[in-house]
Amino acid sequence: MSLSVEKTTTGREYKVKDLSQADFGRLEIELAEVEMPGLMACRTEFGPSQPFKGARITGSLHMTIQTAVLIETLTALGAEVRWCSCNIFSTQDHAAAAIARDSAAVFAWKGETLQEYWWCTERALDWGPGGGPDLIVDDGGDATLLIHEGVKAEELFEKTGELPDPTSTDNAEFQIVLTIIKDGLKSDPTRYRKMKQRLVGVSEETTTGVKRLYQMQANGTLLFPAINVNDSVTKSKFDNLYGCRHSLPDGLMRATDVMIAGKVAVVAGYGDVGKGCAAALKQAGARVIVTEIDPICALQALMEGLQVLTLEDVVSDADIFVTTTGNKDIIMVDHMRKMKNNAIVCNIGHFDNEIDMLGLENYPGVKRITIKPQTDRWVFPETNTGIIVLAEGRLMNLGCATGHPSFVMSCSFTNQVIAQLELWNEKSSGKYEKKVYVLPKHLDEKVAALHLGKLGARLTKLSKDQADYISVAVEGPYKPTHYRY
Amino acid sequence: MSLSVEKTTTGREYKVKDLSQADFGRLEIELAEVEMPGLMACRTEFGPSQPFKGARITGSLHMTIQTAVLIETLTALGAEVRWCSCNIFSTQDHAAAAIARDSAAVFAWKGETLQEYWWCTERALDWGPGGGPDLIVDDGGDATLLIHEGVKAEELFEKTGELPDPTSTDNAEFQIVLTIIKDGLKSDPTRYRKMKQRLVGVSEETTTGVKRLYQMQANGTLLFPAINVNDSVTKSKFDNLYGCRHSLPDGLMRATDVMIAGKVAVVAGYGDVGKGCAAALKQAGARVIVTEIDPICALQALMEGLQVLTLEDVVSDADIFVTTTGNKDIIMVDHMRKMKNNAIVCNIGHFDNEIDMLGLENYPGVKRITIKPQTDRWVFPETNTGIIVLAEGRLMNLGCATGHPSFVMSCSFTNQVIAQLELWNEKSSGKYEKKVYVLPKHLDEKVAALHLGKLGARLTKLSKDQADYISVAVEGPYKPTHYRY
Amino acid sequence: MSLSVEKTTTGREYKVKDLSQADFGRLEIELAEVEMPGLMACRTEFGPSQPFKGARITGSLHMTIQTAVLIETLTALGAEVRWCSCNIFSTQDHAAAAIARDSAAVFAWKGETLQEYWWCTERALDWGPGGGPDLIVDDGGDATLLIHEGVKAEELFEKTGELPDPTSTDNAEFQIVLTIIKDGLKSDPTRYRKMKQRLVGVSEETTTGVKRLYQMQANGTLLFPAINVNDSVTKSKFDNLYGCRHSLPDGLMRATDVMIAGKVAVVAGYGDVGKGCAAALKQAGARVIVTEIDPICALQALMEGLQVLTLEDVVSDADIFVTTTGNKDIIMVDHMRKMKNNAIVCNIGHFDNEIDMLGLENYPGVKRITIKPQTDRWVFPETNTGIIVLAEGRLMNLGCATGHPSFVMSCSFTNQVIAQLELWNEKSSGKYEKKVYVLPKHLDEKVAALHLGKLGARLTKLSKDQADYISVAVEGPYKPTHYRY
Amino acid sequence: MSLSVEKTTTGREYKVKDLSQADFGRLEIELAEVEMPGLMACRTEFGPSQPFKGARITGSLHMTIQTAVLIETLTALGAEVRWCSCNIFSTQDHAAAAIARDSAAVFAWKGETLQEYWWCTERALDWGPGGGPDLIVDDGGDATLLIHEGVKAEELFEKTGELPDPTSTDNAEFQIVLTIIKDGLKSDPTRYRKMKQRLVGVSEETTTGVKRLYQMQANGTLLFPAINVNDSVTKSKFDNLYGCRHSLPDGLMRATDVMIAGKVAVVAGYGDVGKGCAAALKQAGARVIVTEIDPICALQALMEGLQVLTLEDVVSDADIFVTTTGNKDIIMVDHMRKMKNNAIVCNIGHFDNEIDMLGLENYPGVKRITIKPQTDRWVFPETNTGIIVLAEGRLMNLGCATGHPSFVMSCSFTNQVIAQLELWNEKSSGKYEKKVYVLPKHLDEKVAALHLGKLGARLTKLSKDQADYISVAVEGPYKPTHYRY
Repeated sequence: MSLSVEKTTTGREYKVKDLSQADFGRLEIELAEVEMPGLMACRTEFGPSQPFKGARITGSLHMTIQTAVLIETLTALGAEVRWCSCNIFSTQDHAAAAIARDSAAVFAWKGETLQEYWWCTERALDWGPGGGPDLIVDDGGDATLLIHEGVKAEELFEKTGELPDPTSTDNAEFQIVLTIIKDGLKSDPTRYRKMKQRLVGVSEETTTGVKRLYQMQANGTLLFPAINVNDSVTKSKFDNLYGCRHSLPDGLMRATDVMIAGKVAVVAGYGDVGKGCAAALKQAGARVIVTEIDPICALQALMEGLQVLTLEDVVSDADIFVTTTGNKDIIMVDHMRKMKNNAIVCNIGHFDNEIDMLGLENYPGVKRITIKPQTDRWVFPETNTGIIVLAEGRLMNLGCATGHPSFVMSCSFTNQVIAQLELWNEKSSGKYEKKVYVLPKHLDEKVAALHLGKLGARLTKLSKDQADYISVAVEGPYKPTHYRY
Repeated sequence: MSLSVEKTTTGREYKVKDLSQADFGRLEIELAEVEMPGLMACRTEFGPSQPFKGARITGSLHMTIQTAVLIETLTALGAEVRWCSCNIFSTQDHAAAAIARDSAAVFAWKGETLQEYWWCTERALDWGPGGGPDLIVDDGGDATLLIHEGVKAEELFEKTGELPDPTSTDNAEFQIVLTIIKDGLKSDPTRYRKMKQRLVGVSEETTTGVKRLYQMQANGTLLFPAINVNDSVTKSKFDNLYGCRHSLPDGLMRATDVMIAGKVAVVAGYGDVGKGCAAALKQAGARVIVTEIDPICALQALMEGLQVLTLEDVVSDADIFVTTTGNKDIIMVDHMRKMKNNAIVCNIGHFDNEIDMLGLENYPGVKRITIKPQTDRWVFPETNTGIIVLAEGRLMNLGCATGHPSFVMSCSFTNQVIAQLELWNEKSSGKYEKKVYVLPKHLDEKVAALHLGKLGARLTKLSKDQADYISVAVEGPYKPTHYRY
Repeated sequence: MSLSVEKTTTGREYKVKDLSQADFGRLEIELAEVEMPGLMACRTEFGPSQPFKGARITGSLHMTIQTAVLIETLTALGAEVRWCSCNIFSTQDHAAAAIARDSAAVFAWKGETLQEYWWCTERALDWGPGGGPDLIVDDGGDATLLIHEGVKAEELFEKTGELPDPTSTDNAEFQIVLTIIKDGLKSDPTRYRKMKQRLVGVSEETTTGVKRLYQMQANGTLLFPAINVNDSVTKSKFDNLYGCRHSLPDGLMRATDVMIAGKVAVVAGYGDVGKGCAAALKQAGARVIVTEIDPICALQALMEGLQVLTLEDVVSDADIFVTTTGNKDIIMVDHMRKMKNNAIVCNIGHFDNEIDMLGLENYPGVKRITIKPQTDRWVFPETNTGIIVLAEGRLMNLGCATGHPSFVMSCSFTNQVIAQLELWNEKSSGKYEKKVYVLPKHLDEKVAALHLGKLGARLTKLSKDQADYISVAVEGPYKPTHYRY
Repeated sequence: MSLSVEKTTTGREYKVKDLSQADFGRLEIELAEVEMPGLMACRTEFGPSQPFKGARITGSLHMTIQTAVLIETLTALGAEVRWCSCNIFSTQDHAAAAIARDSAAVFAWKGETLQEYWWCTERALDWGPGGGPDLIVDDGGDATLLIHEGVKAEELFEKTGELPDPTSTDNAEFQIVLTIIKDGLKSDPTRYRKMKQRLVGVSEETTTGVKRLYQMQANGTLLFPAINVNDSVTKSKFDNLYGCRHSLPDGLMRATDVMIAGKVAVVAGYGDVGKGCAAALKQAGARVIVTEIDPICALQALMEGLQVLTLEDVVSDADIFVTTTGNKDIIMVDHMRKMKNNAIVCNIGHFDNEIDMLGLENYPGVKRITIKPQTDRWVFPETNTGIIVLAEGRLMNLGCATGHPSFVMSCSFTNQVIAQLELWNEKSSGKYEKKVYVLPKHLDEKVAALHLGKLGARLTKLSKDQADYISVAVEGPYKPTHYRY
């Protein structure tokens, strides 16, 4: 796509695949609203007081139907919003169209190049000459990264006149980031520092982004307060677990139509995401084998009747391979060469480097046959057998299906709304320093409570006497901080 | 579409949506072949001797990728083939394109009108002036029905000069059938009798078609031998059960993206299809309620922890309704009016009359909003709430997803190939009368055996001594006829 | 125990372990009655008319609490009853005591020798000089066998003066049978023929006994009509499947307290019993491997995510071995030698010859350490490692636990009552020849219906219109005979 | 039993039911050792250096076979041990006998009165005139409680001459505690302070005891360091969850033989214990309804397809009630009156006050019928229907079955051994203050690692590069403290 910003009739900026899909997007957004009681409750509770009045929010998070309901919850509470996706394949174009037409500035489409991806991120952060956003909703930390790298570069440039050097790294994606910053430096050498100046804080959605934030906190380089939404119980124990339990088989079926029953499936990693994936595959009738580095998680897998082996033990026997580790170099090209014909290889962990896509692409004589978008058969020359790689190694549930379903995303995103409110309300109180915080447990419990009615549940109430007996307040929170659920 | 037959460069007749999808279809057919070991084994075992040399086969069965592998197995064994779909929504257009281009005459596309549907059926049966097919592969019995109704009308016409009267029935679809026959009678008053003359037999795929056949046998009106493939163990206990366990959630997810976990789902009917659906929904985290007329099946549901109630008991509480009964008038418009907003209503049983689509369409003031093809929201005027109906009440797994996966269809279709071979080989022996037969158990066991290797299984062998002890032959069959598996 | 018959104060004959356990037995019988709605409904429906008035019934069936409720249902309908167990370990002594004291002549205790076992069987058949029973309730066919062998011997003796020769067989148990018959012949050479004369028929409970009956039918040696209760759907698909799903883990836990989660379990045979066992083990967190000879059952196992291998493949890796085949020589001493230390070996199939107990006992240098009754550790001299054998290779769920729970036995036993009623009511009508019959489907459905209310289920009723549409009667039966459930 | 201490021939004190059961206990201990790899690995690793040389350890923890292996691990490491049970029903008498004969001073039998229970506790703490134990292994905190209450009373007595007044409390059990302390005060008014003086610390096994410790820490009344073993991941997420998943159905089956399939079961509380119970019941075919106060746990239940309601909603419909809350007054006599005939009521939470046993006993006209020990039917006079209460409201898995299986207890108890070693090794270092500590994560991971080999698992090893990428050490620990597993 040509990288130029377009404008709606009302002057809102956007860049999406096809604005004419807005009606379709709107219909699906309306369906999703019924499935997202937490977000709708936020509109009811906070909408009238317009707490985000005057706040600029930039989001970098999969531009799906569910995210559309999040965005329109933020705008319903008074915010101005600019948005991009945090994954090149995860945008649902009809969702992007509906939001662009009706609610917020969107820069996102399914199937961006990396170049396009970072252009979109930059657009989402660009609020004009007055600086950047007040708040960031981040997923994986790319928006946060761009600002941190930008500030670093500006400071170095000011001190030494030195510009970022894209050739200094082998990482193709980071080369792009440096180029963007370098180009930006030339036109405005204080751009990212102005952003930093204005920024109240970020709320981060996922494990990978959280890990980056804690590293920055440890190094003392974190530039603004951050709320770790991922580690709310109602996020990591719901979205990661139940979301993937839903969306992994969904992605497998849409991409390959393969029968899961009877197959041997390897799940690399048995954290929350791995647990959800393994449960889904087992329930669908697969025989599941887990690989793990952590003996505790390994023992959990065994207690569920799953075999725990190394990838090397099973690479030639399994039919389906799923990476969920959040680490890199899990399935290498040397593994892939040994797999059965039409073994399926996919990643639902976070980055595409869980699978050695680079090694695969560069394998001498390898042939790539695209069955359909996001479903490629790679044929090795020696054996003339192939493997099927989903979503080019990126998140297969978003690349091949539509990601997590609305209900579980309502839990995650209600945490986001609450985190954003918390940051914004406390912007002047000094409550939040340049550190990483998790939401207090009573807010976590509140998020859950907002989702019970939709499912017909009725909670038991503690008597005062019982509450005293276990030393909690009648209205909660009910568990100590270290409780694991 | 304009109803005119087209021809390939090689002169083969066809009518499909888009022949340019043939390459895509071919790629998916090649993937499916790896998942269909039974059919591929038939090619290896029987291909060299070309047993179907000279045989004309007409098929009326969902024109999917899996069916494409069946068709090309029949042609690999020497047959000439003409094909149509047995459901207006179940054709996969890329599969139809690949077959039309490469292998057989196809008349099928996704989203036929009823008018178009019966035109396609007629085309598939039309082998030119020399009469009809030698063999029929039927699913639901529509091809068989057309011939039986045709013969009946011809005989009446010959005797009385009376033509079929489409206005004699309320059933819109049967009006079309009568019109076709009426029009045919004018041009060739012996057409269907010539078909009957030539026909060696039919092999029928599914419960509904089998029921029709047994009724005709009971009435003494069956015109040719029939093999009941549905009641092969490797069909009804596999395709119906494990196939639906796979394709029901697949259809739900593709059509609505709804989170199944936490929802209340009603499964009407707990036969093989209902068992598969209930298992899938339970495993995905729904609370499943079964409705049943048969106390034995009801008790089976209870033993699996499912609640058994009537539809009236739960109509206002449930989120998802699935009909699997093979009967009619299961969910009426009066039920639908009482459902929760955005309750999902779908059928995986066989005909669209499990759900009262007619009642819904004619409900005063009802509004239909098409979210996307095969996903409609119907809004009732009194409440302004709506329900979501999938695939217009027709088979939702084929209408909203891609039907059953290849592996389980390989079981079903290997039975079809074996049944067709049996009919053809015995065409002159008098072995088969105008009755309904099931395949002998050793062939059923053979079908299963052909599918074990792909899944890495190793069978135990009986010793002679052990075989004697339980009074079976070492090489099987291993079970008495009445064994239920 | 000294083998002499005792008498209650009312003159009823018995031989049980300890009559003082009668009160305890009575309490448990009363609990069981609440869980056996089918039997209690029979008492309500048929009790007033006393249909069994004048009928003598001999039962040879595990003398448990559940059987006690069966016996008292038979007596409540007017029958006189004599009973023995069909397994040396399966008697619950408090159940036997309560029945002996209150209701029927019982000859059974837990831990009979084979000698004692056949003495009990003979006692149960001995109704005094006037001949034997009118009806037999059999389980495994031992009572039926004794009569058939007796008649055969008497006829040979009459013709040739030849007595049965116990030394003519290697089978230790059959030697005992022949000795009993031989001794009997001396005192009354027409005893078994008088029994045959009087006998109206037998209803047989289980697969093994049914197999024997069909063989006798095939050989033309069956002496009286037989009803195959085992193949009622409400028996084989309930008792065998759900009963074993309950009682296998129960037996394992009571015998060994072993944690099932995380273990590798081998289930030999995937029929109804094997399916129940495999489900229970999988659900408890074991990794289950199935061995099978039948490719159809093997494919079913694969579809549930179970691995299918041969015993040889896994003998050294598994922790738990369960035989369910109904065949012999499944686990041989050579297998047992290769097992891991403290591997558990047990049988829930029927006879103890599924496991090579003879080979084990005769293994040179093997040492048997009885942990507690029915739980033995056998230590091999070479390795000094041992395996744990349950119930001496006999039915572990009855030997180590209390067998199937009341509710599922209510299904089985209601079939028994109905079968006995049918035989008795038709004793003069000639309806039943010397053949094996199954109960008609409407009675099978009735048995199920009697069990729904207890579980809170509500059946849907067919409309006349719907019934016509699927060609059944409104009140059933609802399925064709070949339907597999 | 008469409360007098006995002595073995070697002079070791004990009081058990029947020393002659020692051989049977020894056999089962030997079986358990094979299932407890963590404890056996401790013996191998630490045994040679005798780290507990000179240490006196008092344990108050269910005196089962598994605990026997724990005790003999402590003695194998050099400790002297005295032991009592922490529950009046949980002792396995053969285990107690074997330990008393072979290894340690034991005061425990199945079916103690409360009076006897506290006498045993006092005996276990009594190491003679030189003061008490160096270390305590506690479960529920009763040994710790006795010392704290003793010290409090001694201090008050010293200051005011006032003796504890048993009539000052309604709680029958606490009256006994006060009486014991009062009697002790008369003979030695510094006894508990001498114990406090000597005590290095306590390691606490379970939630309830931990809660007490944190309260004492909060109040500043904790007298010595405590290690919270319960909240090791390898304890609370294993023993509580997988242990109860095993032992709940075991207890139900042994106590009642009831069929679980088809029943409606209510699980009060969905913490780790509730999750294990609900999973077991669901898998056995029950329909499970959860009651919860915590919205997060409630939402977890819903995601697994369980219904969440209040006890009032379902009290008349359910068949089985299980309390798992750790709170009091969960099922009151007013609930019990409304239950179905023969509804089963049991507790696996911790104390018997989860069920209103007092209310039940005092209900006017109620009749208690003991079916067998730990299984009572309570009949209400108005309805003449009864409910079945297990283990008199105390832990049903220990009262009616044998508690958790060895393998999962090996995880818990390896934590205990490590905690005891840590306290002992650091007794002079000042590392541990009068606070509650959890074990560091690398020890938690070590416990898990020791249990993998037994189950045939193979761990994956991180490369240095991968470890750096996720910022952990190659050898772990692998997760942040807040990780929830």
